[in-house]
Amino acid sequence: MPQYTPPVRDTRFVLEHVVGLDRYANVDGFAAATPDTVDAVLEEGGRFVAEVIFPLNQSGDLEGCTRHDDGSVTTPAGFKEAYQKFVESGWGTLSAPEAFGGQAMPHVVSTAFQEYLISANMAFAMYPGLAHGAIAALVVKGSPEQQAKYLPKMVSGEWGGTMNLTEPQCGTDLGLIRTKAEPQPDGSYAITGTKIFISAGEHDLTDNIIHLVLAKTPGAPDSSKGISLFVVPKVLVNDDGSLGDRNAVSCGSIEHKMGIHGNATCVMNYDGAKGWLVGEEMKGLAAMFIMMNAARLGVGLQGLAIAEIAFQNAVQYAKDRRQGRALTGPADPGEKADTLFVHPDVRRMLMEGKAWIEGLRALCLWGALQVDLEHNAGTEEERQLAGDLIGLLTPVIKGVGTDKGYEIATNAQQVYGGHGYIQEWGMEQYVRDARIAMIYEGTNGVQAMDLAGRKLAQNGGRAVQAFGKLVMEEIAAGKQDEATADFAARLEKAAGELQGATMWFLANGMKNPNNIGAGAVPYMHLVGLVAVGLMWLRMATAAAKLKAEGQGDAAFLDAKLVTARFFAERILPDAGALRRKIEGGADAVMALPPEMFAAA
Amino acid sequence: MPQYTPPVRDTRFVLEHVVGLDRYANVDGFAAATPDTVDAVLEEGGRFVAEVIFPLNQSGDLEGCTRHDDGSVTTPAGFKEAYQKFVESGWGTLSAPEAFGGQAMPHVVSTAFQEYLISANMAFAMYPGLAHGAIAALVVKGSPEQQAKYLPKMVSGEWGGTMNLTEPQCGTDLGLIRTKAEPQPDGSYAITGTKIFISAGEHDLTDNIIHLVLAKTPGAPDSSKGISLFVVPKVLVNDDGSLGDRNAVSCGSIEHKMGIHGNATCVMNYDGAKGWLVGEEMKGLAAMFIMMNAARLGVGLQGLAIAEIAFQNAVQYAKDRRQGRALTGPADPGEKADTLFVHPDVRRMLMEGKAWIEGLRALCLWGALQVDLEHNAGTEEERQLAGDLIGLLTPVIKGVGTDKGYEIATNAQQVYGGHGYIQEWGMEQYVRDARIAMIYEGTNGVQAMDLAGRKLAQNGGRAVQAFGKLVMEEIAAGKQDEATADFAARLEKAAGELQGATMWFLANGMKNPNNIGAGAVPYMHLVGLVAVGLMWLRMATAAAKLKAEGQGDAAFLDAKLVTARFFAERILPDAGALRRKIEGGADAVMALPPEMFAAA
Repeated sequence: MPQYTPPVRDTRFVLEHVVGLDRYANVDGFAAATPDTVDAVLEEGGRFVAEVIFPLNQSGDLEGCTRHDDGSVTTPAGFKEAYQKFVESGWGTLSAPEAFGGQAMPHVVSTAFQEYLISANMAFAMYPGLAHGAIAALVVKGSPEQQAKYLPKMVSGEWGGTMNLTEPQCGTDLGLIRTKAEPQPDGSYAITGTKIFISAGEHDLTDNIIHLVLAKTPGAPDSSKGISLFVVPKVLVNDDGSLGDRNAVSCGSIEHKMGIHGNATCVMNYDGAKGWLVGEEMKGLAAMFIMMNAARLGVGLQGLAIAEIAFQNAVQYAKDRRQGRALTGPADPGEKADTLFVHPDVRRMLMEGKAWIEGLRALCLWGALQVDLEHNAGTEEERQLAGDLIGLLTPVIKGVGTDKGYEIATNAQQVYGGHGYIQEWGMEQYVRDARIAMIYEGTNGVQAMDLAGRKLAQNGGRAVQAFGKLVMEEIAAGKQDEATADFAARLEKAAGELQGATMWFLANGMKNPNNIGAGAVPYMHLVGLVAVGLMWLRMATAAAKLKAEGQGDAAFLDAKLVTARFFAERILPDAGALRRKIEGGADAVMALPPEMFAAA
Repeated sequence: MPQYTPPVRDTRFVLEHVVGLDRYANVDGFAAATPDTVDAVLEEGGRFVAEVIFPLNQSGDLEGCTRHDDGSVTTPAGFKEAYQKFVESGWGTLSAPEAFGGQAMPHVVSTAFQEYLISANMAFAMYPGLAHGAIAALVVKGSPEQQAKYLPKMVSGEWGGTMNLTEPQCGTDLGLIRTKAEPQPDGSYAITGTKIFISAGEHDLTDNIIHLVLAKTPGAPDSSKGISLFVVPKVLVNDDGSLGDRNAVSCGSIEHKMGIHGNATCVMNYDGAKGWLVGEEMKGLAAMFIMMNAARLGVGLQGLAIAEIAFQNAVQYAKDRRQGRALTGPADPGEKADTLFVHPDVRRMLMEGKAWIEGLRALCLWGALQVDLEHNAGTEEERQLAGDLIGLLTPVIKGVGTDKGYEIATNAQQVYGGHGYIQEWGMEQYVRDARIAMIYEGTNGVQAMDLAGRKLAQNGGRAVQAFGKLVMEEIAAGKQDEATADFAARLEKAAGELQGATMWFLANGMKNPNNIGAGAVPYMHLVGLVAVGLMWLRMATAAAKLKAEGQGDAAFLDAKLVTARFFAERILPDAGALRRKIEGGADAVMALPPEMFAAA
């Protein structure tokens, strides 16, 4: 049976030395995030998820969700009680606005907690996770009445929330939406259509579920420009806040999926359900992107979080399981075999996991800081810089975080050998759960196009220039210090490959946009290497400095330095290959006509 | 619902132009493999598996196997009837020796058929597949009496067969085996112990199952040198060939696994079961490797075969599904959206699939030819060369074939977006099925060590030198022809990286064997790139020649040339990164003490 220990020490190191939480005390919300408060969130929050949520992960996978004939859905045994405790303890309200009952902590702090929650039970975490997306949209786009009516109970967790985008004929291409919104005399709309793949669309955890639904009003353009966003409660809410009639929305079926069995993925049928416009008519896409950007960062975090839990268990298995002998001679001559840990390839897989996980944790938390700064930094210049950086890196955090999450979970399973393939050991669940994160909230190919085809050129390339400047400044500083000079030089080489690839896109993208499309995924991974490399440079710099000052746990700091070296020697070399693939361009990728793909 | 079309045209192209079947007419068995016979095997065999075996794949996954209280195991509905047809039609006997009722066709022909069978239904294919390993061991190591008693009915498929190696405490490290074999007065042995992860260990397809079991005789050394191999029939066989008493071996439970649900993975309990020594006492490891080498090639083929079926369906989905518009402007202006095929990243994933699948098919079939030549070529020199090549490449075919199989299946699932995650579309099953192939018959890390730690240095490096010579000769020839010169130059660069990595191992492996262990997996993939690259050079050369001569289907030949170019431009660049990772050596991989892996 898997175990879970929240990586509190590492989170704290990142918050202190990569994010530099103490530098932002002048930013809204950060004053409240004192070291003591943050420690309490990490310690207590970590303990809560490990004790209450984690024990339901494997049983939830095994049991899954059940839809009953009346359309109601039951979550796995224990979920309802655990969710009740989650709501009572307030763990879902960390960074929500005070005006609606939240604790108004920085996003970076709640992100740290979110990682733990997802590691403990990804399927469970998605119930409050989806609600957070809906909350974000209502906070920005909802009318004061809508906010007053829905947000307090959504923030507290008493009510759930969902995002309803996908339809059978319409996934990435939201212009194809068919769901209709007919205006009614009372100012509401009658929503009719079928939405699929709705995570947490129906369940028994809350009394009400507030659906945010994309639909088209009569006469709206037949494209993504014609989409509007509506709030459609499962149960209508009376003016006094009490629950009224059941709305005409129901769960038609739940999907049988590869993983995240504990989360109900629903087909939702809207049969003239009562809904209200959120924001302006035909501006639904912009409102949707508020949910979507938050959700994408959350999905990137899922990649990290699943990698962490799978990795932790693989480390433990490698310590416990004895098989074979070290290549350098018996490590434990008194035993019949050495532990798996002596085998260099096992160690390689675990080091890859460690290097990516700690690097991605830093990137996710630093990214969350940018979200805070984008909204709350003191100057327009700071807000713009933060917005540029997180805009550029959101698809990277989502795409690279989840690709690596799957790879690390797969490697962790591999450490177990045959036992990794068997249900009871729990590792195969992590691989199955991790898989969806590469697909939903925009497939990783869509993320890559958002980066290479959209974010790169926005505002004359301002974001990628700002990112490049930051990277080169920190590399220059890193090269000055003996302890980080080798790492900085290797990162500089990778950054040079990225610069070369960016120049290649500039030179060849106009000629043929397929040159960008064909290189987009390698480019996303190249940016990911440099961004995570930047995080490792910061961690190595901090570790070397603390060591020199005789502060901190020397073994922990040494581990940071060794892992940074591993990242530089064994992971950064991919940068050159990625650039060469990008520079291969679209010709060979696009040359073959569809009918010639089948070799049969 | 997935579909399957056997890739007969491509198999034929490989047999003709990469394997060069007609050049070996003087080798035992090849005379019978006339073009007409081979065509009939491919056409009829392909039709048989598509019509009879494939329809049971998804239902078999859903239903799985059932163990009853009496220890008997029922396979999924339809398996028994389909297996009966499989036996009656003789598809399992293609390359088995004539003396035991086989058709004595070359191994390369039966390998072509095996690919189709596995694509159609991997879990089903494992039942005859496991028997083949047991047959191989008995053919080489069995006594004439054992051969006469067991082989005819195993070859015909009337009886099944298994390999019993693994025990709870003992996976890769066979020295840890505890199963005991006590000699009995009648010359038999009483076998007692527990074996786990026994594929096809118990089922309802055959009247008898012939288990080959590793165990230790009294006083045998407590290491892999003390292992003997025994034949242990489920039902004892009388001297007249009729079935006698049930032996004391039974299935204690079946595993709940991530995939291959249609195949029963059994815990087998031996309670003083009657067994007979196969070959010499304490030479069980050598006998086991006969099964193992055949099995490893078969598992590599599983990687290819699952990739093929997943790829075929992703191609079809990309043709059918409309979502978004081409970056270069609407491709189908009359439709509301273009097909997925217009999107460069979808095309990239499919081209990667095509390039690896066709390259691996060539490598698997060319490898099977080496198996034939190793045993049946006319001269000792030819037999030695073939044995060297297939010895070197067996871990590569297994390790790279299955790593790529999983990656391609994952990408094929990705093409489906959210639908790929849903059971009914069938794609997630391919990913789950493909995953086991990276683990069993020696994890891919074990394969890599077999290659880098064992095969590389054997006979003074004779095999890797022979392989390098072959590659460089064909590159030199390829550079002479304008049509292949660019490909050959790019392959030469990759081959140079491989040579550099090999030299680095030679220079640094003696100093510290962990330098080999830490680079073994990248090295295996580097050899895989060059080996598959060699196959593409052959295919491109043949395609260019046929085109110049005005022979063959021009579109098919063009597709070969485009795909070769894709392989060179978009896949071969990994060679440099792999070499640099290898040259990173063991230091950063091994530096961190086990207790410092957890960041918590």
